[in-house]
Amino acid sequence: MNHMEKIIPYLETHAGRFEEELKSLLRLASISTDPKHQSDIEQAAHFVHDQFKKIGFATEIMATDGHPVVYAEWLHASNQPTILVYGHYDVQPPDPLDLWTTPPFEPTERNGNIYARGATDDKGQLFTHIKAVESWIKTEGSLPVNIKFLIEGEEEIGSPNLDPFIQQHREKLSCDIAVISDTSQFAPGVPAITYGLRGLAYFELSLEGPQQDLHSGGFGGTLTNPANALATIISALHDENGSITIPGFYDEVLELSKEERQRWSQLPFDEKGYQDHMGVSGLFGEKGFSTLERKWGRPTCDVNGLYSGYSGEGSKTIVPAKAGAKISCRLVPHQDPKTIAQGFKKLVSEICPTGIRLSIKEFHSSPAVLVPVDSPAVQAAARAIEQGFGKWPVFMRHGGTIPVVTTFQEILNVDTLLLGWGYPDDNTHSPNEKFCLASFHNGIRASASLWQELAVEKLS
Amino acid sequence: MNHMEKIIPYLETHAGRFEEELKSLLRLASISTDPKHQSDIEQAAHFVHDQFKKIGFATEIMATDGHPVVYAEWLHASNQPTILVYGHYDVQPPDPLDLWTTPPFEPTERNGNIYARGATDDKGQLFTHIKAVESWIKTEGSLPVNIKFLIEGEEEIGSPNLDPFIQQHREKLSCDIAVISDTSQFAPGVPAITYGLRGLAYFELSLEGPQQDLHSGGFGGTLTNPANALATIISALHDENGSITIPGFYDEVLELSKEERQRWSQLPFDEKGYQDHMGVSGLFGEKGFSTLERKWGRPTCDVNGLYSGYSGEGSKTIVPAKAGAKISCRLVPHQDPKTIAQGFKKLVSEICPTGIRLSIKEFHSSPAVLVPVDSPAVQAAARAIEQGFGKWPVFMRHGGTIPVVTTFQEILNVDTLLLGWGYPDDNTHSPNEKFCLASFHNGIRASASLWQELAVEKLS
Repeated sequence: MNHMEKIIPYLETHAGRFEEELKSLLRLASISTDPKHQSDIEQAAHFVHDQFKKIGFATEIMATDGHPVVYAEWLHASNQPTILVYGHYDVQPPDPLDLWTTPPFEPTERNGNIYARGATDDKGQLFTHIKAVESWIKTEGSLPVNIKFLIEGEEEIGSPNLDPFIQQHREKLSCDIAVISDTSQFAPGVPAITYGLRGLAYFELSLEGPQQDLHSGGFGGTLTNPANALATIISALHDENGSITIPGFYDEVLELSKEERQRWSQLPFDEKGYQDHMGVSGLFGEKGFSTLERKWGRPTCDVNGLYSGYSGEGSKTIVPAKAGAKISCRLVPHQDPKTIAQGFKKLVSEICPTGIRLSIKEFHSSPAVLVPVDSPAVQAAARAIEQGFGKWPVFMRHGGTIPVVTTFQEILNVDTLLLGWGYPDDNTHSPNEKFCLASFHNGIRASASLWQELAVEKLS
Repeated sequence: MNHMEKIIPYLETHAGRFEEELKSLLRLASISTDPKHQSDIEQAAHFVHDQFKKIGFATEIMATDGHPVVYAEWLHASNQPTILVYGHYDVQPPDPLDLWTTPPFEPTERNGNIYARGATDDKGQLFTHIKAVESWIKTEGSLPVNIKFLIEGEEEIGSPNLDPFIQQHREKLSCDIAVISDTSQFAPGVPAITYGLRGLAYFELSLEGPQQDLHSGGFGGTLTNPANALATIISALHDENGSITIPGFYDEVLELSKEERQRWSQLPFDEKGYQDHMGVSGLFGEKGFSTLERKWGRPTCDVNGLYSGYSGEGSKTIVPAKAGAKISCRLVPHQDPKTIAQGFKKLVSEICPTGIRLSIKEFHSSPAVLVPVDSPAVQAAARAIEQGFGKWPVFMRHGGTIPVVTTFQEILNVDTLLLGWGYPDDNTHSPNEKFCLASFHNGIRASASLWQELAVEKLS
């Protein structure tokens, strides 16, 4: 039986209402970082909660040490898989306001897009899954799988309370697979499944030389300058081919297969457009790899920040007392953040010169994520996207790290399907954030189809 | 005739009054950087002006675009050399106040020292020359040489109006030699003449990569990171022996003579104390040179400041849009700042990698200064110091740059005698600044003797 034959007309009939409801959610300035918007945060949580209540989901607003989690579930599909859908109802601050064509919390349609803070990140994308479950309940009276929704209000401030929440409620959240729509398609008209993410290892180096800034005339030349020493250390992290010199850094790297490299090389990647978007006069990276390979499949070691001595206007003639750097490595599958941290500390300590007290701080780390493209769940998602977007998706990776995916893997022991409906140019976190309305409706259709495709008879 | 036989008793008789007068000057909080102390600045200028008026010098308070210059002259020694004494009546701010044992503008005697802001830098040292001319006028009714005083009120804010003043009044300020007491002895009990200063070439490097900070996950690995590039450039400025790799950097360097190195090696330099003073666990510098040689006689290339990306608490995962560094070279005699700047720009531009827009800003520069130790003026000063301090001085250099010395050389075409009466541990610019009272009185005696020693019959 093809349930979509009943569902698609429902989606078409209610399309206008779906847009109006999304706009109502977008009008709530649920800026998680700003205490002045506490009331908007609460209203947004209640709005989402009410969406589930209306369609008969068991739902609750659950307190955390920060903003609440909205939880909802429908668990009446016996002997069927359980899907956990993650999303977030909070948004980034809209500043700078003067760069918005229309106000960030007055959702406005232009050229087939809806413009508002949160349009794509993540209210619009999250809403596709809510409307998809509604369409099943309203037409079939049931869902073909069990579904749980975990919707937080602190994603834009780094989800400080999410891991403890998942740990505490890991029975309640147990599932067979997770689904997140909070990323983007490969390009407009090129729907995608993201099957890999890079991991992260983040450090701060602190070099202390003299006990206070010294006059560079009176003392310069007789002691190690911490800023010069820092430069020497950072410079030694790469060789002239752009390869990273940390001992053992590449030992466990899962090399890209010939087949994967071939597949990526055929993607419609606009290298010139990518370069222009960044505003650089040329690209550079590890020798022997293409830009997409460097971006998705190769590890990095980037300085994120530097500080030392005097950085104001004009000149000051000192040997600085201190110098520091924030340095992070993006990791690829099979690299162990612990091993990388050991190698990093070993190299840095060996290079660090006479007269410098070195300290190395480790921040959060997480390993890379890779979901096999040929797994039944990924193939089910691909079929659903084909039904929603009219095209078989491309399989891409993403160079970033989505910590909740690692948490789901570590605490719930499940893979995550990353089904991004946005476009790369949706201005996430920037003025004039937008979401394509066609993608919104295609996403709802793909999501409605996904529940069917993930049911046991389709997976087996 | 030995004039000192009449002068010394005068100095002894009036020693107590000299100290009281110095204390009066030290009570004036003439902090040049702080507009709230405008009235103290004016009072200090008038105090100094009155000192000269009382002894019959022609004196005036001369306006500049900033704080005024006190000028005074006595030009009645026909056929005798003309000496220009430079000093400054302004002081550094006293912060942090809570580290002072007694308040900075309530001069207090402890253990043979006078504690106050400005005690050694430069009111106390300047005052020795004022009291020395007084002692000649009051005992002999005249001076054995012509003397001009140039006393500014902006030394602690970088003398922004001094060069134009000297240029404008170069006829008025014309002289045969300049004298400055604003440095220190080699060590307590080891009086010194500073016959060399290092020069300076100061640059700011600015590296621009992407047009804005980029997500290090989404973009890292595909473009040159400006902070990593900056580290590579800085690191390339030295080789592993601590030598500077700027093309042509050492070509014009006046090498230290065997005799000079030998002389320095015999100075009572406390290397361990020097290291402890800086608070470092070891010294480092150019291979093949001693610490004093590195400090006084070898050029450097030090980073004075670094800035890039995120430097706050915690972590931020970005490829920074920009990175910058303040970098300065201390130069030694015969190095030309222009040639050094050319070499620096050449090296940096060559190393700067793909995708970075580099700009190099040049700040002030000045060549090193070297006064021949065997010149008649230096030998005259040595004899004067022997009479004032009871010991023949050592001949030292200083690693810093005193811009007014270069200005005197360039505009007035004269050498400067740097006769520092302070101690290296006088806490210049720091809490509990002090000046040894014995040095104060020895300095007055040495100065009184210096005028005699610089007269033609002694020089010929």
